[in-house]
Amino acid sequence: MALPQPRLDAPFNVTRASHVVLTGKDLAASRAFYADIIGLVVTYEDESCLYLRGLEEACHHSLVIRKDGGAGVCERIGLRVFTERDLELAKKYFDSVGIAARWVDVPFQGRTLHLDDACGMPVELCATMDDVPRYMQDFHRFHGASPQRLDHFQIVASDVERATRFYTDIGFRITEYTATDGTEDLWGVWLQRKGNTHDIVFTNGEGPRLHHFAFTIPDTHDLIHICDVAGSLGIADVIDRGPGRHGISNALFVYLRDPDGHRIELFTTHYQAIDIETRPIRWDLSNTRRSQLWGLPASKRWFFEATRFKDKKTSEPVLKADPVTLEKFLAMGR
Amino acid sequence: MALPQPRLDAPFNVTRASHVVLTGKDLAASRAFYADIIGLVVTYEDESCLYLRGLEEACHHSLVIRKDGGAGVCERIGLRVFTERDLELAKKYFDSVGIAARWVDVPFQGRTLHLDDACGMPVELCATMDDVPRYMQDFHRFHGASPQRLDHFQIVASDVERATRFYTDIGFRITEYTATDGTEDLWGVWLQRKGNTHDIVFTNGEGPRLHHFAFTIPDTHDLIHICDVAGSLGIADVIDRGPGRHGISNALFVYLRDPDGHRIELFTTHYQAIDIETRPIRWDLSNTRRSQLWGLPASKRWFFEATRFKDKKTSEPVLKADPVTLEKFLAMGR
Amino acid sequence: MALPQPRLDAPFNVTRASHVVLTGKDLAASRAFYADIIGLVVTYEDESCLYLRGLEEACHHSLVIRKDGGAGVCERIGLRVFTERDLELAKKYFDSVGIAARWVDVPFQGRTLHLDDACGMPVELCATMDDVPRYMQDFHRFHGASPQRLDHFQIVASDVERATRFYTDIGFRITEYTATDGTEDLWGVWLQRKGNTHDIVFTNGEGPRLHHFAFTIPDTHDLIHICDVAGSLGIADVIDRGPGRHGISNALFVYLRDPDGHRIELFTTHYQAIDIETRPIRWDLSNTRRSQLWGLPASKRWFFEATRFKDKKTSEPVLKADPVTLEKFLAMGR
Amino acid sequence: MALPQPRLDAPFNVTRASHVVLTGKDLAASRAFYADIIGLVVTYEDESCLYLRGLEEACHHSLVIRKDGGAGVCERIGLRVFTERDLELAKKYFDSVGIAARWVDVPFQGRTLHLDDACGMPVELCATMDDVPRYMQDFHRFHGASPQRLDHFQIVASDVERATRFYTDIGFRITEYTATDGTEDLWGVWLQRKGNTHDIVFTNGEGPRLHHFAFTIPDTHDLIHICDVAGSLGIADVIDRGPGRHGISNALFVYLRDPDGHRIELFTTHYQAIDIETRPIRWDLSNTRRSQLWGLPASKRWFFEATRFKDKKTSEPVLKADPVTLEKFLAMGR
Repeated sequence: MALPQPRLDAPFNVTRASHVVLTGKDLAASRAFYADIIGLVVTYEDESCLYLRGLEEACHHSLVIRKDGGAGVCERIGLRVFTERDLELAKKYFDSVGIAARWVDVPFQGRTLHLDDACGMPVELCATMDDVPRYMQDFHRFHGASPQRLDHFQIVASDVERATRFYTDIGFRITEYTATDGTEDLWGVWLQRKGNTHDIVFTNGEGPRLHHFAFTIPDTHDLIHICDVAGSLGIADVIDRGPGRHGISNALFVYLRDPDGHRIELFTTHYQAIDIETRPIRWDLSNTRRSQLWGLPASKRWFFEATRFKDKKTSEPVLKADPVTLEKFLAMGR
Repeated sequence: MALPQPRLDAPFNVTRASHVVLTGKDLAASRAFYADIIGLVVTYEDESCLYLRGLEEACHHSLVIRKDGGAGVCERIGLRVFTERDLELAKKYFDSVGIAARWVDVPFQGRTLHLDDACGMPVELCATMDDVPRYMQDFHRFHGASPQRLDHFQIVASDVERATRFYTDIGFRITEYTATDGTEDLWGVWLQRKGNTHDIVFTNGEGPRLHHFAFTIPDTHDLIHICDVAGSLGIADVIDRGPGRHGISNALFVYLRDPDGHRIELFTTHYQAIDIETRPIRWDLSNTRRSQLWGLPASKRWFFEATRFKDKKTSEPVLKADPVTLEKFLAMGR
Repeated sequence: MALPQPRLDAPFNVTRASHVVLTGKDLAASRAFYADIIGLVVTYEDESCLYLRGLEEACHHSLVIRKDGGAGVCERIGLRVFTERDLELAKKYFDSVGIAARWVDVPFQGRTLHLDDACGMPVELCATMDDVPRYMQDFHRFHGASPQRLDHFQIVASDVERATRFYTDIGFRITEYTATDGTEDLWGVWLQRKGNTHDIVFTNGEGPRLHHFAFTIPDTHDLIHICDVAGSLGIADVIDRGPGRHGISNALFVYLRDPDGHRIELFTTHYQAIDIETRPIRWDLSNTRRSQLWGLPASKRWFFEATRFKDKKTSEPVLKADPVTLEKFLAMGR
Repeated sequence: MALPQPRLDAPFNVTRASHVVLTGKDLAASRAFYADIIGLVVTYEDESCLYLRGLEEACHHSLVIRKDGGAGVCERIGLRVFTERDLELAKKYFDSVGIAARWVDVPFQGRTLHLDDACGMPVELCATMDDVPRYMQDFHRFHGASPQRLDHFQIVASDVERATRFYTDIGFRITEYTATDGTEDLWGVWLQRKGNTHDIVFTNGEGPRLHHFAFTIPDTHDLIHICDVAGSLGIADVIDRGPGRHGISNALFVYLRDPDGHRIELFTTHYQAIDIETRPIRWDLSNTRRSQLWGLPASKRWFFEATRFKDKKTSEPVLKADPVTLEKFLAMGR
């Protein structure tokens, strides 16, 4: 099986990972976590929903939490296309390949197209949002991790190759991937449109589920500070993994869990991936450096816990995973 | 006069600021400055030339120095287009608008197109370069400022509006600009293709001249460290300006001068600028915060000294500049 | 003239620079500056006074501002001695050398001894203060520069050698000094008791005046952040000098001016100075690196403006200073 | 049992933790680890020994490795006293309390006194060492973790209270301690002479053994960088624990293991502890925040592995420890 190739003459222009819509039991708790502790900006809130954005974002929202009494789920991830014409082209494209896509009205967004991708994940596309002020120079507002902008999503998919082809067909390019040694069996794929490391990542597992969404933060200091703040507030158990450095993507990361168990990554480092001659970086499955350049591997809960998509069933993965969790690593006598 | 509008259906796809070709009297001195002190990677060198790249760059070069006994000049700036087809489209476009563009062979690059832009600056376009390893995870190689990649050029232009139209006509978008209060008379324009703050900047003055080229660095610490290293090596006079924070672009910056007087900016902060609804940020000429959020203004030499382009005459600026230099600022009794 | 030698069998044990008492016209403005912007902790306040401390300090106060309608002055600097017995020994010592020292009651402090030092500066000694919680692990309180503790005072003295002898006689040791090339004529002396770079600094000039007091901050990031915060609040003119790196003391510094014109230094770097065999570092007056390892020299106002001590006349300096100010440096054609 | 009280009129003046003497199988490997990777300065080396110091240290050595073919041991820890007279007073004191102390000649040190402390740890005292240049402003030499100076030792002692009394009797003061909830049974004691958090730490366990020695590093960035360097060199398994933040001492830490298994801590944060009224900070044994403000607890090997002292037998601990290791923590279902 060969690595899926990006369609360079994309049928429409997706520009970036845009936003994610989650549910939460208690919006006050969600607000305390995301705005007071982590440092996101509240753009809008009422009794039923909370709209947040990063400090530098001029778009209305990159994270939406809707009140819902049940277990926290992900309602949908959002992608941006460049222009309204790209939206029209997207609709035509999905019609042509037999994917149901329908126009919907979504508050604070321009015309929006809803569809499910090839792994069953609910996605929405829009070209515009309401415009709001960037706070990137309101340094007196910075606190917690000082998150700047939403960067990417990581999705657990039962069939990574199938999920990947859906996105390479609409112009996503692969920056890095993990494959079984000596084969092209895909365990993980890092896909991008915006010219750096990733907009969407797929990793093999029971899916579709949202493993995490990620915001960029400005500096190493901010990464340490959010851990310290969690510690000083007595809620260090929100720290799910890290700090650490990924081999894949080169991110200096920390992962936190929100009050509903949704996972957010905060990370500093990125690289540019624009040029056409640059080949994807391959990581053999046997290379444990891919997930951790230093320190200990992630514990089981990082590997196996994720957020379900609303009303979506999950499937068993095509490849049977047996990662070196922290638990195993320690049992191996380190 | 209205602000030039970007042509959204660009005639060809320029992806990013790519590289700059300078001349230097003494390549050993240039190498010591850029590789040993600042921390760029040497990709290739011989008696007549020196090719360098940032630590994360997979492209062969982003900075080229050619040996030349005279005063240091800039031979050319380089832009990337996405595919070879974009190169063909570029040639057609320039033919159609009466701009002489010719194919040339350039070492380590794919087919390359040479032309002069509307302000007389020599530019080259290519779609590919030779592929080399990214060193972004060779942390033991990091030193000096640990520069990661070339980000943008700043050009002194005698007619900023004319220069701007050339680039908006080929799809560049304006992120920020400076205009005389109450008018749209352009003193400075920040133009981008790669989805963040800038690829090319034009500011009003005797031009065309290269004011500086800029590399990103990972962290506040690296900015301070390069100043400390310059201090400990007894060459603090290479520090031309800063550290400081620009209002426009939000860059945390320091400017250095190389052995031939060429100016390099090293900076940490960037913001994403992709969405179509986001309007350019306007700065009135009277707002001194645009160049400095904190600290002192730049001295005369930062405002008025720049690198000439090889064999190009300069013209007097359309707008007569009278910036608040550090010298004036102090004389005003601060 | 030989460099004054510390008396190793000190007559009493001064442990450290402790606190400074200033006057301010508007305590709300002082509070906004020191607590809201810079990030000091308010221990106590009423209509007539404001007591502040650093985030890690367990002592009641390190900075006191008393309301006073006139021009801001310094009422007194405070030093700590180790025990009450050291206070008694101090009283005996000053009696024995003919210096008037008197017991006073000072709120929130143990028994306190008042005296004027050899350069006419009002000093107070105490062995204890009221104990308050350290907030060094209340990371959610950290903001502005996150200042941790008062570190030292810098005093303009008309006779640096005379001032120095007063302190070496009570056990202060010299870590660094500036002298006219080829002589031991003292322009500046860095004196310490607590085992690092400095508790009191004397520099030549019209004195006695308080040039600045200094708080340590944890990290390079905090230094940049306070400049950014000043910039984002539109009060960048409070930045008096820096950021920069001192040759003497190795401090990475920024100087701010408070609403009454008092100068505070915030700095990160320190070195340990405990061992008896380590000789003071000498800096020739002609070596401009002593005040600036990188960047530009300080402007006139940093060199010549300082806070007067309450009701104290100043004297012309013994040595006639002609520092290379920023103004001169620029006029020299840099 | 009451907390041991420091003798404020110490019989002699110990100033600080000074140096540690270890053995290593392969001095080239030790040099690569400490000098090339971590960034210590080599002061002297020959076939049988390696002398290292921190970048800011003006003393000849703070870490000595002697070649020895066997398992790595600690030969001795070194403390500084202020003057030669303090050495004489120390000899008199130890004679008076029946502790064998003998004068020895040690290269690069002034007259040196050898003795075993109350827990059987070999200690040496000296007042002076050979003087060497501080490299704290040779920023171009900084690499790895840029370690500045030796700060403290942590010792596993079978009887923490007994060990503590030995040191409080010679003037050490307690900054923090761990005790069984509701009692003063001592599990760990942080002792200091130099006016900040710690010079010697004792924790309960099979002892005497050297748990680690610690060097200060300048900045958060340096902590992350040494992990990255270990990762990029493919030796991430030298990382023994961290990065993390201790509750006790407030250190932002990482622990590494050298080629002989000796453990070094690199850390950034410290606080000042000079004033006599400040009481020790008590941590109940049940409070897991003491060792970790955020992230995961240490694994078994951090808790139970340590370096033996040369030719010294160890004893079972007075208190039976059952710490929450990472292994247990994970098994508890986190």
